[in-house]
Amino acid sequence: MTEPRGELAFIHWIRSQLPSADPRVTIGPGDDMAELRLPDGGRVLVATDTILDGTHFDARRDPLPDIGWKALAENLSDIAAMAAVPVGAVGTLALPRDFTMAQGQDLFTGLKRCADEFDCPWVGGDITSWDQRLAITVTVLAHAERPVRRSGARAGHCVCVTGRLGGSLLGRHLTFRPRLAEARRLAEAAPLAAMIDLSDGLSTDIGHLCRESGVGVCLEAARVPVSDDAVQLAARDGRTPLDHALNDGEDFELLFAVAESDVARVLVLDLGVEVTVIGRFVPAAEGCTLVDSQGHALDLKPGGYEHWR
Amino acid sequence: MTEPRGELAFIHWIRSQLPSADPRVTIGPGDDMAELRLPDGGRVLVATDTILDGTHFDARRDPLPDIGWKALAENLSDIAAMAAVPVGAVGTLALPRDFTMAQGQDLFTGLKRCADEFDCPWVGGDITSWDQRLAITVTVLAHAERPVRRSGARAGHCVCVTGRLGGSLLGRHLTFRPRLAEARRLAEAAPLAAMIDLSDGLSTDIGHLCRESGVGVCLEAARVPVSDDAVQLAARDGRTPLDHALNDGEDFELLFAVAESDVARVLVLDLGVEVTVIGRFVPAAEGCTLVDSQGHALDLKPGGYEHWR
Repeated sequence: MTEPRGELAFIHWIRSQLPSADPRVTIGPGDDMAELRLPDGGRVLVATDTILDGTHFDARRDPLPDIGWKALAENLSDIAAMAAVPVGAVGTLALPRDFTMAQGQDLFTGLKRCADEFDCPWVGGDITSWDQRLAITVTVLAHAERPVRRSGARAGHCVCVTGRLGGSLLGRHLTFRPRLAEARRLAEAAPLAAMIDLSDGLSTDIGHLCRESGVGVCLEAARVPVSDDAVQLAARDGRTPLDHALNDGEDFELLFAVAESDVARVLVLDLGVEVTVIGRFVPAAEGCTLVDSQGHALDLKPGGYEHWR
Repeated sequence: MTEPRGELAFIHWIRSQLPSADPRVTIGPGDDMAELRLPDGGRVLVATDTILDGTHFDARRDPLPDIGWKALAENLSDIAAMAAVPVGAVGTLALPRDFTMAQGQDLFTGLKRCADEFDCPWVGGDITSWDQRLAITVTVLAHAERPVRRSGARAGHCVCVTGRLGGSLLGRHLTFRPRLAEARRLAEAAPLAAMIDLSDGLSTDIGHLCRESGVGVCLEAARVPVSDDAVQLAARDGRTPLDHALNDGEDFELLFAVAESDVARVLVLDLGVEVTVIGRFVPAAEGCTLVDSQGHALDLKPGGYEHWR
């Protein structure tokens, strides 16, 4: 007997176990961050992510400060996806027993540099050790007057993306800068109907956004901004640069929906990173498609990495 | 060249790297939870803890629902230590690749049962997988009008503890009930000057509380409440029951300081768990001592478990 497995099936099952409504939970599972209402009336956003040696980094090869940077930066990217402001971070380090104090300090130095750079106070955590590989979990708290959800995209909205995609494995996945300031400037310039950060790969993450919004999407292949890294990787492995841009994970760029009448307001911003319109959201019944340079519409299938399959 | 190592030295170094004051950080590292002030004026408490297969549990032997329960319950115990109310929890599961969906569900069922029992909404997290052992990290958010800190104990205050200590390894470390309701009732009955939950062992945790408060302590060995589990374990391993009660970890009972004039108000409560006065806080210069049944004062040394030594 086979059983459905994988991160997404498990998350789906977990969500089915949770109560549908709790007045304290103003944004529940399914978005980049959850939001909770505090007894004193305050509202706080929270997200948590683990990175594992051998999966998200390679401790034998990658610089420890970069690993520390990544552990916090990928959480800050979730804050960017809500157009929110960091409030603080905590984290736990599960250290291999033979880790030295100098290695621990190198790791924390990268975490701390990221915390300082993005003005997110580090307020504590937990240190453990074991005879297994390094695991780092960071949790971030944030706040937004109006958090941008995944669920607000509507048919007709433009699909926009920051930066250039694909090939982050060549190094960018460790050293990327979360788009915190860019997200807030975009949200100030125009109402963003929906937003997500690209962690699993464009083809997978746009599926998350479409599902939460109840829409489909039509992307134009020729408009997808392909990074130099994607071109380099493609030259090595025989896949196309577009394949890398669509399906590689860990770009940590922003994908967002904006009404056509507002799109000029985001395109004129001088963000220091390009913003590209790569397609349109469409009614859910039309599904998710990619139009190639010959005008053929292909099914856009989630091609990103899925854990525990 | 030897280098200082271990969880405590590393945490000490990390604290030395952090800015001493940030207006957003109302309680910084060094307490059971940190507290942050949100841009909307709200205040939120946060704590995070990891449990690791082979260190905090044994996935070959311990029931998966109990492991899930423990992952959340030990975080809720930190909330109890601040006399706070849970607001929500998130968590990350790093699953061994051969974990089955049924195993994942068993694990989550225990987490969820704990979340329901203590009214702490579960609002999401992250699932990853790897070729290493199971690691679970939970982060909890909480709120208290007046959080009870570790730093308020003064010479002359009584040292109180809930429950009976030692031998949790026989099973209680997986199935304990965090003292959330008890902590709030204690804090309502009398001003608690300081509090901590017993996770590393009485002899170690009282040191944390003394250090943060700038006091010493004098405990009476005969008053330390010894659990039946400690007696059982002692019969097996030749250590004394008192040694287990002083030095075993994961009791998850509360240790707190209360003025002598207030102590009667906590002792008369019917909490469903005993509260025992086990000694007095003293000036820091007098150090930490344990008076044995013959009236001899011995040095009270931290004898609990320390990670990464």
